Amino acid sequence: MVTTRTRAWRGNELIAEGFPLEAVSDHLATPGVVVWVDLCAPDKEQLALLADELDLHELAVEDALSEHQRPKVDYYDTHAFMSLHAVEVDLDRGELVNTEIDTFVNEHWLITVRKDSRFPVEPLMRRWDRSPHLVGEGVGFLLYGLLDLVVDGYFVAASKFDDFYDLVSEGLFGDTPLDPDQQRHWFEMRRALVRLHRFVVPMREAVSGLMRREHAVVSTPLYPYFQDVYDHILRVSETTDALRDLVSTIVETNLALRDYRQNQVMKKVTSWAAIVAVPTLITGFYGMNVPYPGSGEHWGWVTAASLTLAISVLLYVLFRRREWL
Amino acid sequence: MVTTRTRAWRGNELIAEGFPLEAVSDHLATPGVVVWVDLCAPDKEQLALLADELDLHELAVEDALSEHQRPKVDYYDTHAFMSLHAVEVDLDRGELVNTEIDTFVNEHWLITVRKDSRFPVEPLMRRWDRSPHLVGEGVGFLLYGLLDLVVDGYFVAASKFDDFYDLVSEGLFGDTPLDPDQQRHWFEMRRALVRLHRFVVPMREAVSGLMRREHAVVSTPLYPYFQDVYDHILRVSETTDALRDLVSTIVETNLALRDYRQNQVMKKVTSWAAIVAVPTLITGFYGMNVPYPGSGEHWGWVTAASLTLAISVLLYVLFRRREWL
Amino acid sequence: MVTTRTRAWRGNELIAEGFPLEAVSDHLATPGVVVWVDLCAPDKEQLALLADELDLHELAVEDALSEHQRPKVDYYDTHAFMSLHAVEVDLDRGELVNTEIDTFVNEHWLITVRKDSRFPVEPLMRRWDRSPHLVGEGVGFLLYGLLDLVVDGYFVAASKFDDFYDLVSEGLFGDTPLDPDQQRHWFEMRRALVRLHRFVVPMREAVSGLMRREHAVVSTPLYPYFQDVYDHILRVSETTDALRDLVSTIVETNLALRDYRQNQVMKKVTSWAAIVAVPTLITGFYGMNVPYPGSGEHWGWVTAASLTLAISVLLYVLFRRREWL
Amino acid sequence: MVTTRTRAWRGNELIAEGFPLEAVSDHLATPGVVVWVDLCAPDKEQLALLADELDLHELAVEDALSEHQRPKVDYYDTHAFMSLHAVEVDLDRGELVNTEIDTFVNEHWLITVRKDSRFPVEPLMRRWDRSPHLVGEGVGFLLYGLLDLVVDGYFVAASKFDDFYDLVSEGLFGDTPLDPDQQRHWFEMRRALVRLHRFVVPMREAVSGLMRREHAVVSTPLYPYFQDVYDHILRVSETTDALRDLVSTIVETNLALRDYRQNQVMKKVTSWAAIVAVPTLITGFYGMNVPYPGSGEHWGWVTAASLTLAISVLLYVLFRRREWL
Amino acid sequence: MVTTRTRAWRGNELIAEGFPLEAVSDHLATPGVVVWVDLCAPDKEQLALLADELDLHELAVEDALSEHQRPKVDYYDTHAFMSLHAVEVDLDRGELVNTEIDTFVNEHWLITVRKDSRFPVEPLMRRWDRSPHLVGEGVGFLLYGLLDLVVDGYFVAASKFDDFYDLVSEGLFGDTPLDPDQQRHWFEMRRALVRLHRFVVPMREAVSGLMRREHAVVSTPLYPYFQDVYDHILRVSETTDALRDLVSTIVETNLALRDYRQNQVMKKVTSWAAIVAVPTLITGFYGMNVPYPGSGEHWGWVTAASLTLAISVLLYVLFRRREWL
Repeated sequence: MVTTRTRAWRGNELIAEGFPLEAVSDHLATPGVVVWVDLCAPDKEQLALLADELDLHELAVEDALSEHQRPKVDYYDTHAFMSLHAVEVDLDRGELVNTEIDTFVNEHWLITVRKDSRFPVEPLMRRWDRSPHLVGEGVGFLLYGLLDLVVDGYFVAASKFDDFYDLVSEGLFGDTPLDPDQQRHWFEMRRALVRLHRFVVPMREAVSGLMRREHAVVSTPLYPYFQDVYDHILRVSETTDALRDLVSTIVETNLALRDYRQNQVMKKVTSWAAIVAVPTLITGFYGMNVPYPGSGEHWGWVTAASLTLAISVLLYVLFRRREWL
Repeated sequence: MVTTRTRAWRGNELIAEGFPLEAVSDHLATPGVVVWVDLCAPDKEQLALLADELDLHELAVEDALSEHQRPKVDYYDTHAFMSLHAVEVDLDRGELVNTEIDTFVNEHWLITVRKDSRFPVEPLMRRWDRSPHLVGEGVGFLLYGLLDLVVDGYFVAASKFDDFYDLVSEGLFGDTPLDPDQQRHWFEMRRALVRLHRFVVPMREAVSGLMRREHAVVSTPLYPYFQDVYDHILRVSETTDALRDLVSTIVETNLALRDYRQNQVMKKVTSWAAIVAVPTLITGFYGMNVPYPGSGEHWGWVTAASLTLAISVLLYVLFRRREWL
Repeated sequence: MVTTRTRAWRGNELIAEGFPLEAVSDHLATPGVVVWVDLCAPDKEQLALLADELDLHELAVEDALSEHQRPKVDYYDTHAFMSLHAVEVDLDRGELVNTEIDTFVNEHWLITVRKDSRFPVEPLMRRWDRSPHLVGEGVGFLLYGLLDLVVDGYFVAASKFDDFYDLVSEGLFGDTPLDPDQQRHWFEMRRALVRLHRFVVPMREAVSGLMRREHAVVSTPLYPYFQDVYDHILRVSETTDALRDLVSTIVETNLALRDYRQNQVMKKVTSWAAIVAVPTLITGFYGMNVPYPGSGEHWGWVTAASLTLAISVLLYVLFRRREWL
Repeated sequence: MVTTRTRAWRGNELIAEGFPLEAVSDHLATPGVVVWVDLCAPDKEQLALLADELDLHELAVEDALSEHQRPKVDYYDTHAFMSLHAVEVDLDRGELVNTEIDTFVNEHWLITVRKDSRFPVEPLMRRWDRSPHLVGEGVGFLLYGLLDLVVDGYFVAASKFDDFYDLVSEGLFGDTPLDPDQQRHWFEMRRALVRLHRFVVPMREAVSGLMRREHAVVSTPLYPYFQDVYDHILRVSETTDALRDLVSTIVETNLALRDYRQNQVMKKVTSWAAIVAVPTLITGFYGMNVPYPGSGEHWGWVTAASLTLAISVLLYVLFRRREWL
Repeated sequence: MVTTRTRAWRGNELIAEGFPLEAVSDHLATPGVVVWVDLCAPDKEQLALLADELDLHELAVEDALSEHQRPKVDYYDTHAFMSLHAVEVDLDRGELVNTEIDTFVNEHWLITVRKDSRFPVEPLMRRWDRSPHLVGEGVGFLLYGLLDLVVDGYFVAASKFDDFYDLVSEGLFGDTPLDPDQQRHWFEMRRALVRLHRFVVPMREAVSGLMRREHAVVSTPLYPYFQDVYDHILRVSETTDALRDLVSTIVETNLALRDYRQNQVMKKVTSWAAIVAVPTLITGFYGMNVPYPGSGEHWGWVTAASLTLAISVLLYVLFRRREWL
């Protein structure tokens, strides 16, 4: 079942709420009334009904039914269509979960079509109720409220990435290299970060387009508010840029550290190899079947043992001093 | 043999179909008639005939005969020339197969010249029949139908790449490194992806040029449709961008994983070398031809064997604990 | 407790200083008077009071209360809001410490809101007092003084990075590779450098915006001064660009040097291995239980010892000549 | 000796050819006459003479005498100066051979100054003769003919690079790594490719400048022809871009393959080392001078030999199964 | 002591030279007179005197006293200030030596302030004397002469880098890797190249700005000359771009070659290790204290020696054939 939410305002006053879809045109008949309709996961028929009533463009309706990968605004004769994406970061699974919210905007109404219920509509209504003096600015304010919420979500996502990479930077200088599981997590997080970035950039363009073109929607008193949203997107986009930069630095540093660690291991291994190889040579010498000095004699054994021990200790001390061990 | 397809419309009505090339001018004599002619792999003479009849520019005809590597639109006095490329991905061979479709456009006719039959013309005709109410918008709609089909093909190609790289990302964290055959496949896929990208970018420019300049072709009611096509190309181009980004990430991750694997192998090899080398030293010791304690004695043999075994086990346990084995 | 500083000028003359916030509107009532108010870490109430008195926009006030990550200028109906960041480099900890200074500007007053006392206000007042003949140019000069101070701080920071990387370049060619502590310091410094860069770029835009738009603020005689500030930011931004370039070069050079060093070590290790392995082979030969020439004979021992020694010396000389040792 | 070529046209008709330099002004005296003069490797005096006669700017003459590294167009009061570069690829030596062709253009004459005879002038004359109906368009067509020829040479060069890199891509997956000679060839080819790219890009700008500015030179009927040349340059520039991209991919793939090969070699070496080391340990064991079980006994020898053999075979089979051998 | 040079022209005629600073205003009183003043390393007082006399802006004077890192032009009410940098490459020390030359320009005078005597003023005077017919164009020509000289120095520097990197490219394919000293030289040269690049780019902007804005300075007949200078800077900037590209290619090629060399060394080392290890195994076998076939027998010794020799030779031949040795 599709849940439908409706609201109607005249000036700053909320005059109706929760009325059926059929009543939309009645409300719109009254001059100065602004109507909001929210559909969650509507089917084709229901959307077609609304499209008919409000004369929505067939391409916009098609867009609202299919899934998109990028925010955009399309301008039609009698209305605009805006496709938004609310995001959430699932840190454990290294995933960026997104919900599409499509909107039809006109100076008299705002239709929001959510693809599923992951983006709850209650905070949006609370956002609107918080600034009743701006509701009178019309649909522009309603749209601002929605954008503000979505962009706040981007902010939260960006900070989560920020925290994640702070942790990663900390862990980078630990003793052990990354195992494949961690590598995979990093990999997923990088993909998620790129995806966030790819939501933010067209969103920035869409909002700046709204501010330039749709003066019917963005009235002068609302302008600073859209500017504020725009500024927030800009900050998110700079954060993601900075993080992608940081990721490169991390990759390079990791490489350098790995080289350091491998070098340390190689030195250790080589040192121990030498400590074993030289005594082996000596015992080999004393194993020859020729009458070398001390062969078959007690003092030969003492010499051999002393040599073996002495050289081993000597090598150990030598390598220790050079910090190879 | 060249197959020729023809159609003529007046307003929204299809008034003739399958008439010979010679009848084209007759149809064009009637005001308000729009004619479509399709030639598949035409020879020089046939194209020359048509060029004469419709006064096509010699450079455009030359272009339609030779092969191109990039989509483009050229504007001549009496018509425009557009070169398109339909693509298909052959995942197994890692190849991007493309067919060139050249079009001559004017407000009265649309000529499509296909280099070969790999791009079938039937879906195009079906596409046109699906929106009869738009046929009355003239050649612009016919062109839109063609662009829409070609760009849909780009979409399909991009999704195939998307799926391929999802699989690659999955396989990345497996235990075995890539063998040369897989490397080659990756290499070919990367080249194919770059080629797709290089079709998409000039296509984007071509369509945006059409929307800006040729208002004779793109009428106001058609504008949203071309905008829709443009939006699709944009999405394809963002997908290919994202994929190229992903490829870099995969390359880097692969490098890091390879290092991890090499490191694991090196540790193992070094551990086993130590487990073999130390007993070798001991047996060397007991092989010396000097009267060391226990030489020639049974208890000597017991000590030697115990030492060898004990040290081997000790080393094994030690390396195990440090996760070198 | 919040410290508040105030000043009022008429023309080039300082007419009042240290008056309470309540007196601000009295001063503003006199034509030609310019007022400066500084608040350090104000609470919500105090700012609200001032906002009321001077009719500051609610979004600007909100911005002044929250923390920002990037410099920006917002233009409201009756005033502009500018967010600045003074920076300092902590070389030891590899950190870029920044303090936010928010300003409200109008042709009659300048309000500075410092987030904390890390940016002292005394140098700013001294800067103003140094050029009394320009104070008559109004708020524009006050703003210039502030920008000049902040940008000077950027300069100092950039030079510190410059010195740091000169040192790093020197140390690069030393004998020992970097240990993890140094790597960490480098890593932190790189992050700090990126952060500085990310303050400088939007700052450049903000100042160039001021010069373009706010002619009410930047009067003709002040123009060269703002141009000078702009030029300074440009230089800082080019320095940070050059440094980021240098960092890449350092990373690459470090890699090449590391390879050189590893190669040197590998040659040494291999040489010593050979010097030990060949005598081991010979002693093994003489350890066989077969009547080889010289077995059990004195001259056998002499031959064996001579061979061992000769070959070792030979190998040593050989490797020495090829510069492997 | 300098070879001079001359031609004069009136309308579409060639009215004189091979006349001496002195006759140039006579021909130019007739209205509607267009003159072409070609000098191959002229000396200072000869050029000075011509400069005097046609009032060429001293800077343009200086440019025609010295050598340039980039195509360019300079606009003077009475004429334009264009510097072109014809190129050829020497695949064996990995070199891009270029010849400079400088031109002075005015609506009445075209002077071509070739630095040497490597760019033959006959194809140019044939090119002009092929389209006699366009000669009447004046100097613009002559210039077009020259540009067309030069850009065709770029095309040929780009295709040679294309073929070269196709071969390289094929060879990439062979068994043996590149030896220094091949590396050097690659290196030279990369430099040559970059050089081609650096001719193409300013050439593109120069032609697009001609199309924008010199409407005296590019008449409306000639516009499509210049557009065609422009399009060709664009394709060459996209080819070189794509090739540079491909080169990076090749470098990365080569690195990955090298790692694969090194890994294979390392596994083999390690396996053989183990197959040799373990028997060595056993023979060491049996070489101890202690009465171990079987020492001095026939069955001892059988056991030792069997163990040695068995373990070697076992290890061999083991490594074989894990595909290390 | 500060050396001051002065000159005055009326039209094309040099009317005075070497007059004292005090006489500058006298000369300027005569209409149509153009004055040049050169100060080398002036102190604050001397510059203040001149500033007073010619009404130079305080910020420009401040700039002329401090040191800059980038070329720039600032436009003041009555004059422009231009900061130039003459450069020289010290190939041995891998350093780019630069001298700052600051100029104040107005339609009546040109002041040049050199920071030190490293940029000699005589060539500049000779440059002016070479084109007396252009001196009448006023200060613009004087400025052109200076720019021409400075940019010629850039040219020389760029060619030196060009030659250096040609040598480097040659040496790249030699047998021995780079030692740290050479690495350091490369590193310094890279830094110097970046510094050159960073002088060239803003210089380009400055000259193009002069050509756009200061038509009072650049008269129509001078325009081609400034265009020529601009073109030269463009070529220098393209050369430095190409060189930076080349440096990356060199770094990559060097990496590939290093891998090749390491691989060669590894193969050699492994081969020799095998040639030593297998005989060691055999001698170990014959050293066992068990009655193996031939133990204590002459034919045993013969077999052992033959086996050892045969296998060593076999392995040697084998590795030789596979080109491991």
